[in-house]
Amino acid sequence: MGLANVIGIVLGSGLIITAIITGGFDKIFLFVDVASVFIVFGGAFAALFVGYPVVAILKIHRPIMVTFTAKARDPLKMIEQITALSEAARREGLLSLENHMEEIDTPLLATGIRMAVDGMSPEVVESIMNTKIEALNARHEYGKGLVANLGRYAPAFGMIGTLIGLVLMLADLNPDTIGTGMAVALLTTLYGAIISNLVFLPWADKLGLINDEEMMEMEIIVKGVIAIQSGENPRIIKQKLFMYLPDSEIPVEEEGA
Amino acid sequence: MGLANVIGIVLGSGLIITAIITGGFDKIFLFVDVASVFIVFGGAFAALFVGYPVVAILKIHRPIMVTFTAKARDPLKMIEQITALSEAARREGLLSLENHMEEIDTPLLATGIRMAVDGMSPEVVESIMNTKIEALNARHEYGKGLVANLGRYAPAFGMIGTLIGLVLMLADLNPDTIGTGMAVALLTTLYGAIISNLVFLPWADKLGLINDEEMMEMEIIVKGVIAIQSGENPRIIKQKLFMYLPDSEIPVEEEGA
Amino acid sequence: MGLANVIGIVLGSGLIITAIITGGFDKIFLFVDVASVFIVFGGAFAALFVGYPVVAILKIHRPIMVTFTAKARDPLKMIEQITALSEAARREGLLSLENHMEEIDTPLLATGIRMAVDGMSPEVVESIMNTKIEALNARHEYGKGLVANLGRYAPAFGMIGTLIGLVLMLADLNPDTIGTGMAVALLTTLYGAIISNLVFLPWADKLGLINDEEMMEMEIIVKGVIAIQSGENPRIIKQKLFMYLPDSEIPVEEEGA
Amino acid sequence: MGLANVIGIVLGSGLIITAIITGGFDKIFLFVDVASVFIVFGGAFAALFVGYPVVAILKIHRPIMVTFTAKARDPLKMIEQITALSEAARREGLLSLENHMEEIDTPLLATGIRMAVDGMSPEVVESIMNTKIEALNARHEYGKGLVANLGRYAPAFGMIGTLIGLVLMLADLNPDTIGTGMAVALLTTLYGAIISNLVFLPWADKLGLINDEEMMEMEIIVKGVIAIQSGENPRIIKQKLFMYLPDSEIPVEEEGA
Amino acid sequence: MGLANVIGIVLGSGLIITAIITGGFDKIFLFVDVASVFIVFGGAFAALFVGYPVVAILKIHRPIMVTFTAKARDPLKMIEQITALSEAARREGLLSLENHMEEIDTPLLATGIRMAVDGMSPEVVESIMNTKIEALNARHEYGKGLVANLGRYAPAFGMIGTLIGLVLMLADLNPDTIGTGMAVALLTTLYGAIISNLVFLPWADKLGLINDEEMMEMEIIVKGVIAIQSGENPRIIKQKLFMYLPDSEIPVEEEGA
Repeated sequence: MGLANVIGIVLGSGLIITAIITGGFDKIFLFVDVASVFIVFGGAFAALFVGYPVVAILKIHRPIMVTFTAKARDPLKMIEQITALSEAARREGLLSLENHMEEIDTPLLATGIRMAVDGMSPEVVESIMNTKIEALNARHEYGKGLVANLGRYAPAFGMIGTLIGLVLMLADLNPDTIGTGMAVALLTTLYGAIISNLVFLPWADKLGLINDEEMMEMEIIVKGVIAIQSGENPRIIKQKLFMYLPDSEIPVEEEGA
Repeated sequence: MGLANVIGIVLGSGLIITAIITGGFDKIFLFVDVASVFIVFGGAFAALFVGYPVVAILKIHRPIMVTFTAKARDPLKMIEQITALSEAARREGLLSLENHMEEIDTPLLATGIRMAVDGMSPEVVESIMNTKIEALNARHEYGKGLVANLGRYAPAFGMIGTLIGLVLMLADLNPDTIGTGMAVALLTTLYGAIISNLVFLPWADKLGLINDEEMMEMEIIVKGVIAIQSGENPRIIKQKLFMYLPDSEIPVEEEGA
Repeated sequence: MGLANVIGIVLGSGLIITAIITGGFDKIFLFVDVASVFIVFGGAFAALFVGYPVVAILKIHRPIMVTFTAKARDPLKMIEQITALSEAARREGLLSLENHMEEIDTPLLATGIRMAVDGMSPEVVESIMNTKIEALNARHEYGKGLVANLGRYAPAFGMIGTLIGLVLMLADLNPDTIGTGMAVALLTTLYGAIISNLVFLPWADKLGLINDEEMMEMEIIVKGVIAIQSGENPRIIKQKLFMYLPDSEIPVEEEGA
Repeated sequence: MGLANVIGIVLGSGLIITAIITGGFDKIFLFVDVASVFIVFGGAFAALFVGYPVVAILKIHRPIMVTFTAKARDPLKMIEQITALSEAARREGLLSLENHMEEIDTPLLATGIRMAVDGMSPEVVESIMNTKIEALNARHEYGKGLVANLGRYAPAFGMIGTLIGLVLMLADLNPDTIGTGMAVALLTTLYGAIISNLVFLPWADKLGLINDEEMMEMEIIVKGVIAIQSGENPRIIKQKLFMYLPDSEIPVEEEGA
Repeated sequence: MGLANVIGIVLGSGLIITAIITGGFDKIFLFVDVASVFIVFGGAFAALFVGYPVVAILKIHRPIMVTFTAKARDPLKMIEQITALSEAARREGLLSLENHMEEIDTPLLATGIRMAVDGMSPEVVESIMNTKIEALNARHEYGKGLVANLGRYAPAFGMIGTLIGLVLMLADLNPDTIGTGMAVALLTTLYGAIISNLVFLPWADKLGLINDEEMMEMEIIVKGVIAIQSGENPRIIKQKLFMYLPDSEIPVEEEGA
């Protein structure tokens, strides 16, 4: 996944640089202005400091890491693991799942199976697991909101920078410098638009998609654990959970089941 | 359906080209600029690569295919098939529907009837079918969101291209080239607006409408299967399902029923 | 209702024409440009062809007709008819309502009473009527969405037309024609803004309001039919349904009831 | 409340006029243009005539009156009245509330108590009261929507007026009149922005806030009437209803209760 | 938390001032214009006076205070306090919690425990506590909405000020003053953008986040009180409430529990 990000940002930046160079290789320096970088980035982060507690901003590497390290979810494998557990539970009894705990590397599934083994009622298990899911979802929304806010503030400070540049230029109208003055003024708007549309907004999109995928996996886990606990037929559990997959991803031998 | 798309895009492009030609046939070359095409399309797809996993973008032909191949849903025919099945179930028993399986070419209906024949309880059948519907709806929303994002990023990169063009032009203000410089700069905004409003945004609309139609058909199927399983009177099942149709589409002989 | 529409469009167009004429009667021709009309209307309809099936666009006269012919709902009269039916049902039995069927000219009320007379259970009657209401609401939303999309695409193609005009003008900067060139370029934006804000957007508003009114009437009917079927006291039914009316519209003799 | 409105509009208008006068007292006439007033107000009302039935627009004085006459709700007093009624009901029986009817000047409370005295079941009373609240809420939303639409159409017609002015000016480019032509063209945008942001949009906000306050009072009344009818302990009723108040507004002697 | 606000506003203002000074230290006076300050702030507050009752605006120091004084919530500590109470209740009986009342400094927890001790049924306790939470949430939304409205009106009045300045400048086109006239006109837009994006909008964000944190703590309290009242096992209560925390914040010795 992180690969796509890198491709996207390299591709986008490449296109923009190419577009600039078509106007002449020597003109790339026109587009570099340190003060403009400060206004756009600094301004967006300053707004973030007003709107978020310091600790949250210091943790901004987390949504970055999530984007790069989130492993692709494989709902089919999850369904097969749940079915295997349900078969074991049917064969050897619910308590025997204790012996399968070390095979489970998804924390929510482990939590759910443990609670089932501990003899909690299905309603309590479901409510506890849903609390965890909702709390996780809220934390993900928080991280996504922080990135989306950067995508909202960057163009705003781009416009603020351009307004400052325009006032400076207009106050000293000089036919010789009007062009370069206005060119520099426009740079902050350009920076704000690029950083927002190539980085922050798509990044917020991706955080949302990663969350959606995880939420679906978690829904599968909750349904599966409750079904195991209720002693449902493994074949029916499998059929139920396959409903989360598009027809094309359901293994062929199963479709007729 | 695909026909309407073709008509729309041909009509829209034709109008735009005609508008350009009214300014003189020789001026059409003014509106062609390869670098601008790259900025708008490349930028929008670059943003997509940041926001979506590579596999999802490689599957972009799917929403395209859906738009062109989605068969118009015929809820009336679906209602009649369900009523026929309910009559068979009443006459020959629920199990006899096994013999009608090969007549059913809608996968969800086949799945539902099979589960009913297999003796699952109506609540389980309903919950399984609803899971399938919700998962399908989520996948459709994903595809629609991807297209709508292209419709959101294309104009953004159109503006970015125009800003780059303006900076290049302003840095070298020359009364002789200012006009053509600005004309070229505006092309990316023009491209972004056309591609977004003539292709991506209406296409996202259409994906939404196709989904709505399919969701309604699926709701009819769920209600129908549950009603068959509960052994309801076929006449009442028909009457219930006709409620999904506008009065003008209910066959006349039925309205008095 | 249709009257208000005509008043509105005539008033709005009159104001705009007057505003133009204040600049000199001979200047009205400046604002007429056939190519611009084609870009804005043609473009908006082309986008509609991409986003909607042909059959839906061919039925666009329906939301137009609805706007002009929708009869004002009279919830008070509806409440009185329902109360009268409930009194008849109490006096002569539910089955006697069969004799009142021909007095009922609201289809949903007729459907509901017929189902009650046919001896369906109140839960089934309520669920069937609600299905009809939701399906109708969805169809109304569809029609409203189509009109609102025209209101969204018209200004977009107005801007596209202006960009085309600007490119044509800028590519051939000529102090003598720059003014008229830009004036013509702005016409499409002007057309898009007028058609959207004076016709499409308010028309979509009106379709929404007409739907809201019909939905309220249908809610009254559902509550009324269920109450009749449950054999509730007509006085209490009336009191219940009066709750939908503002105090000022409840007949005086009833308020103390 | 009306006072705040008057303060706001006077303050806002005063600031704007002061801003104009800083440019020279003789320049105020530059900002007065009757045709522009007609375009902005007339256009916004014309759009309203397209989108709303005539009767609704003729009742536009109602939301105006509401804004000026809405009495500040006093939930504390309402809670105390309900507690007093619940004490009377406990002491002398539910039927004795008949003798307290004339002390109740809130129509919903009177309706609720009367229904309780008439012996309707708590579920019916609650459902009837909720119908009234929802219908009232819908009517308030309607009024608020109408005002918010004026706030949406006024700037749109401001822009339309400016476009007309620009076309007139551009078609006859004259170095001597270009400035005044453009100044006049901008007036409609200025009028639209002022009327929308100083009057229509905040007025719609206020209608929403007034509705929120009334809805909370009505929720208190429903909870109170049901509690009285269920014969709950007056002390507990009071404690329950105090939950609607911020801690700082709960009378001190009660907090420890 | 207040610290982050101060950092943000100082950082943002510093960046903006630095950006201005890069144009020359003597140019800072170009950006100071008292009339512009009045238009933007005065206008935004005037709109507030139209939309809000005077008392609400006079209480505007409250959301300011909240931002600076809101103590960071520590859900872990809250969970531990609830678990301790549940152990006490198990050991010594629910009534014994009376002796622990003075250790509880969170008002909602105190209210809930007191009601439990007073012998109210869990359903009543839950419903009363939820009423309090919803009423608090509504009051917080009110305060956030007020600040967000300032963030919406400030740029609007910035634009109004710029339009006034443009009309004044255009009416008296003078090559010598056109630049400074336009520079001054742009100042209100600049002020509106800065105040909105550096202060009002992020401040509204922060009020929302503080509310979210408090709502989560209150949800924990409600679940905890109900669990204590139902005599649930303290170990299970703890496990349930830990679900609100990210795995990384759950004390290590507990995770295996």
